[in-house]
Amino acid sequence: MTVHDPHRPVIALAMGDPAGISPELTAKLTCLDEVRAVARLLVIGDRRVFDEGARIAGLTPDLPNLSPSTDPRSIAGEAAFMDLGHLDPATIERGVAVKAGGAFALENYRRALVLAREGQADAVCFTPFNKKAMRLARPQYDDEIAFSAEIAGLKTPASEFNVLDKLWNARVTSHIALKDVASLLSVERIHRALTLTNACMRRAGFATPRIAVAGLNPHAGDGGNFGREEIDIIEPAVQAGRAEGIAAEGPFPADTVFLRAKGGAFDAVLTMYHDQGQIAMKLMGFDRGVTILGGFPFPICTPAHGTAYDIAGQGIASVGASRAAVLLAAEMAGAARIGDRAA
Amino acid sequence: MTVHDPHRPVIALAMGDPAGISPELTAKLTCLDEVRAVARLLVIGDRRVFDEGARIAGLTPDLPNLSPSTDPRSIAGEAAFMDLGHLDPATIERGVAVKAGGAFALENYRRALVLAREGQADAVCFTPFNKKAMRLARPQYDDEIAFSAEIAGLKTPASEFNVLDKLWNARVTSHIALKDVASLLSVERIHRALTLTNACMRRAGFATPRIAVAGLNPHAGDGGNFGREEIDIIEPAVQAGRAEGIAAEGPFPADTVFLRAKGGAFDAVLTMYHDQGQIAMKLMGFDRGVTILGGFPFPICTPAHGTAYDIAGQGIASVGASRAAVLLAAEMAGAARIGDRAA
Repeated sequence: MTVHDPHRPVIALAMGDPAGISPELTAKLTCLDEVRAVARLLVIGDRRVFDEGARIAGLTPDLPNLSPSTDPRSIAGEAAFMDLGHLDPATIERGVAVKAGGAFALENYRRALVLAREGQADAVCFTPFNKKAMRLARPQYDDEIAFSAEIAGLKTPASEFNVLDKLWNARVTSHIALKDVASLLSVERIHRALTLTNACMRRAGFATPRIAVAGLNPHAGDGGNFGREEIDIIEPAVQAGRAEGIAAEGPFPADTVFLRAKGGAFDAVLTMYHDQGQIAMKLMGFDRGVTILGGFPFPICTPAHGTAYDIAGQGIASVGASRAAVLLAAEMAGAARIGDRAA
Repeated sequence: MTVHDPHRPVIALAMGDPAGISPELTAKLTCLDEVRAVARLLVIGDRRVFDEGARIAGLTPDLPNLSPSTDPRSIAGEAAFMDLGHLDPATIERGVAVKAGGAFALENYRRALVLAREGQADAVCFTPFNKKAMRLARPQYDDEIAFSAEIAGLKTPASEFNVLDKLWNARVTSHIALKDVASLLSVERIHRALTLTNACMRRAGFATPRIAVAGLNPHAGDGGNFGREEIDIIEPAVQAGRAEGIAAEGPFPADTVFLRAKGGAFDAVLTMYHDQGQIAMKLMGFDRGVTILGGFPFPICTPAHGTAYDIAGQGIASVGASRAAVLLAAEMAGAARIGDRAA
């Protein structure tokens, strides 16, 4: 047995949608030596769903059940299972988004957030959710950010980040029609996103994150020829951030800023709209991308891909992005604890 | 000496901006065996500027001067030079966009277009222009498309395409502010772009090009939740194209369509705006991208990158995209001639 850091963080890992690849990914994760070396995983779900995922993945994870009354911090080994006993996998048809699947994932995730909120876990991860199933189970479900803020009791701003290897991508606007993007941009809004990005990255261990800010228009407006947002809105927001010590630069043309970031010139790119960053990040590493919910007092990480209903149950789903999500959560939780000790 | 096809196309290659990397790229191009094997290059420019480029590139190209009265089709070897004797390189400061540089590139390009228009060349290529210099020399200069249409006497629509390896990218809107994109989209406009893309690709040798059409909004609107353009405008345009036999599909989410195209699922992606395609194409191969001006009776190809003033004169500029441009022009000219014979 490997000698592990006895202080390695406890990660509450919520099982995601049971009709997709989440059960097999969860099982695969618990068997990875590199994960076990840096974290104590507490998987939250139904043991039967998990065991079915392990069977699909061809694995027999060493994963004792934790009794409901036990403090997760007492996990001595590398991983344990919190069995909520709330879903019989025989009732779930693979590849179909149903209310029971959404309710399963929501409850697992809620428990994970509560553990972290109560200080019994250092970070939260989850395997992919299906938004349709979540909404069937909870009609008012909007997105992970809103739900997490509600359970965690967060009153300050939170935001979604995409991370690929060491490169972060944040965005000023997200799931809105493209026609509404320009009118929603303001110096204040961009400055807020910049501040939040900077704060989250510092919490994740970057001393002074180098943040490139993308323009909105082709060629970053070409000096005002194709739009003035760069001049009137984005540049002043960058300057405001710099005045506060944020290592922000830009605005840069969106079609080359990721090339420069990929080459190591920046730690993050702040984009103005969803696809500006998503086109680049998915092209650079669809199988390794991690989504972070930033702004919470503990790290929340998940693979950037979805439930992949089309390949569920075949055991072929790549665990790469899920592994990256757990490793990043462990690193961030470690960095936060070092920060706490230093403070 | 290699045995070459005596019918290989004559390509009129206009020297671009003299203050950037164009002279050295032009010289490098004329020395490539793979270029000489498939085309007869006729370089148009000033011999002194060219020789200076060759010196920078460390090359001594075998390139006889063509006398002005000679029909370019009589070029027996692989390459020749049409010396206009209109620019002394000693008068050009490297890295600075000036009127004389713009006038030089414009005149070279005009001659190349006239040769192709008159049937004395089969295709036109040019090394990078500097738009600022072009406008200093010709204030009403808008872009390459408008100028080429004027010289070639083209009355039908033309469009710019980006090509990487075998993947084409066309766009419905281009150099306009992002806030104006949505209001400029219409079924007619998208259908027109689709038709033009299909026609140009057929001329380039694709029997039935498979064209993916990108959505406008994140997740292609998510069923109307983040914008209705996919439902109201893009989908009807795709259907109209399909009804005419165009192998169009979509609309697809922009953040994954290039991954699928890269994997071979499509020959082209039609994007709704500039950066949607440019972010992807530049990430996939900044050093190999070719720009095609499509819709003309002869191929017009150029490297997708610019004049790179920052590295001009060092001999380090990559010839990759220029080589790809000439090889593509030769291939397209060959396909057109086969098409003519078949017609």
